[in-house]
Amino acid sequence: MTKRKVNIKDVAARARVHPSTVSRVLNLESRSMVSETVAKRVEKVAKSMGYSRSPLASGLRTGRSFIIGVLIPDLTNPVFPPIVRGIERSLNAQGYIAMLADSDNNQDSEMMLLDSMKSRSVDGMILATAHRKDPVVDTCIADRIPLVLVNRTTDKHDVTSVVNDDVHGIDLAISHLLELGHQRIAFVGGPQNTSTGHDRYVAFRNQAKKGRIKTHSDLMVNTRSFTEAAGHKALKALWSTRRKFTAVVAANDLLALGCYDALKERGLSCPNDLSITGFNDMPFMDKLSPSLTSIRIPHDEIGRQAAELLLSQIKTPTSAERTIITLKPELVVRDSTRSPGG
Amino acid sequence: MTKRKVNIKDVAARARVHPSTVSRVLNLESRSMVSETVAKRVEKVAKSMGYSRSPLASGLRTGRSFIIGVLIPDLTNPVFPPIVRGIERSLNAQGYIAMLADSDNNQDSEMMLLDSMKSRSVDGMILATAHRKDPVVDTCIADRIPLVLVNRTTDKHDVTSVVNDDVHGIDLAISHLLELGHQRIAFVGGPQNTSTGHDRYVAFRNQAKKGRIKTHSDLMVNTRSFTEAAGHKALKALWSTRRKFTAVVAANDLLALGCYDALKERGLSCPNDLSITGFNDMPFMDKLSPSLTSIRIPHDEIGRQAAELLLSQIKTPTSAERTIITLKPELVVRDSTRSPGG
Repeated sequence: MTKRKVNIKDVAARARVHPSTVSRVLNLESRSMVSETVAKRVEKVAKSMGYSRSPLASGLRTGRSFIIGVLIPDLTNPVFPPIVRGIERSLNAQGYIAMLADSDNNQDSEMMLLDSMKSRSVDGMILATAHRKDPVVDTCIADRIPLVLVNRTTDKHDVTSVVNDDVHGIDLAISHLLELGHQRIAFVGGPQNTSTGHDRYVAFRNQAKKGRIKTHSDLMVNTRSFTEAAGHKALKALWSTRRKFTAVVAANDLLALGCYDALKERGLSCPNDLSITGFNDMPFMDKLSPSLTSIRIPHDEIGRQAAELLLSQIKTPTSAERTIITLKPELVVRDSTRSPGG
Repeated sequence: MTKRKVNIKDVAARARVHPSTVSRVLNLESRSMVSETVAKRVEKVAKSMGYSRSPLASGLRTGRSFIIGVLIPDLTNPVFPPIVRGIERSLNAQGYIAMLADSDNNQDSEMMLLDSMKSRSVDGMILATAHRKDPVVDTCIADRIPLVLVNRTTDKHDVTSVVNDDVHGIDLAISHLLELGHQRIAFVGGPQNTSTGHDRYVAFRNQAKKGRIKTHSDLMVNTRSFTEAAGHKALKALWSTRRKFTAVVAANDLLALGCYDALKERGLSCPNDLSITGFNDMPFMDKLSPSLTSIRIPHDEIGRQAAELLLSQIKTPTSAERTIITLKPELVVRDSTRSPGG
């Protein structure tokens, strides 16, 4: 007797239901259409018979690949893995998988990666790579590829995105430093062609314009990349102005860590000689020496919401409504900030 | 006058070469077949005319996708992003791109991700997910998919892999602690179904058997995952034995960080109350409080060599020779270790 592979009809017969019911139960998108009692019986039978639905076979029928492309600008920036993890878990829970690519901050690579994912017929894209003007985003929109931006957005306000309230985040950092008694505060910013770099800089500059903080245009340095090396160089540039400042607001945690390096190189210490705040509260910031005061963005929540917005676009393509979700960050006070000279 | 898209013949005409020469120059794999003078002229002309080779068009001709699938067990473990970066840069330099997926340490997911990458016709796979017995690896071999394992390998010694000398690494950690004067040393290990977890544990146990260190089987705890939570739990389990020890060798950095958490919770400090060594020297370990003494594995080199081994398999499929590259790790001494009671 040869062993035949169990098929959907075998499961249906044993579970005493119609094959379409088995299909509905084993498809996460349609499972809720079946009563819980029946669903559980079908699952038990399918498992006992060693039957599992092939998402690809189901994809051939529905024209879906069940794959979502995710572009990350810099995988070595620890803020992205937990966002990606949030995306993956939400996608997996609905039977989709994420196919990731890391562009190493290169816009040519981003376009090539998009082309390649398109040709592999992904069902949608999540981009963490957005620039304020972004041909990859333009292409997705022109080609009607379901799309969600995370963390960063574009200047065109018609793209569904999950971002952080960057203005509020910078205000939290400034308020914290003012409360500690700092008056002269410098700023180490990020690339101005990204919404995060731009919005955080504008937020800081506006507080200066309003006279809420004492600073000077020389004391606001925008870097070309959100990296430790850029932060290191920026703090040295701030020192070379010979203007006084007792605290630095950095536009992300890696820039803040670069400031740590510059201090160490000069034989100075944080927070004794300089208070520093970061942005993102990426993993391990609580274990640094000194632990970093930062603006916490909800990594998992950003990823989860992005995945859900994308899946609802895919399932209901008619709802062309663009949604922008802005999440509120929180201040996390640690050891890198204290009263000046205190 | 309508503007026509520049094609390969236009470039060839302007550069005064045959179109096949343009193709060779713009294909990284065949560029060396053309003299440097001609290659430079062709590149200059192609650039001035805004012409670029489409890797996908070229793939349609050669049957290659120019995409390499990369499976990672845990993207939130900071040891993996720099290895992935090494893989990507080497692949990109030869005209290939990496398509990543994170399995969240789930073997079912790994098989599903492999299926999905296969159906998208990747040219080869790099797996950082290998278990000592691994159906994903078996499938790749059965389906003759070019394959390289990184960091971990399987018990079957016929798979091309780039790994670290784990025995040497553990010996370095033990020698360092012995030199500091530690005698009673405990071990916090990883999952025994991975080569890294298994080999590091066996290396430690062998040193104990040889009588080089004083320990006890109760003082060797193997966890089920390479995570902070597992390390935290393991150190508490070690304390509950009520046996004395002055140092812990952890099988990776995340386990070591979990030990930091357990110490802090108990109001103790490292290295005053306990010396701790990690393994991997992942990013930011130099900036921790205390900075972590660890075994440095060459992340970029691991990634680079894996990519190159894979591409040579793809280009010369006849060379079925299996290669195992074992890289030597180094001890990096920092502040988490010091003389006991010193």
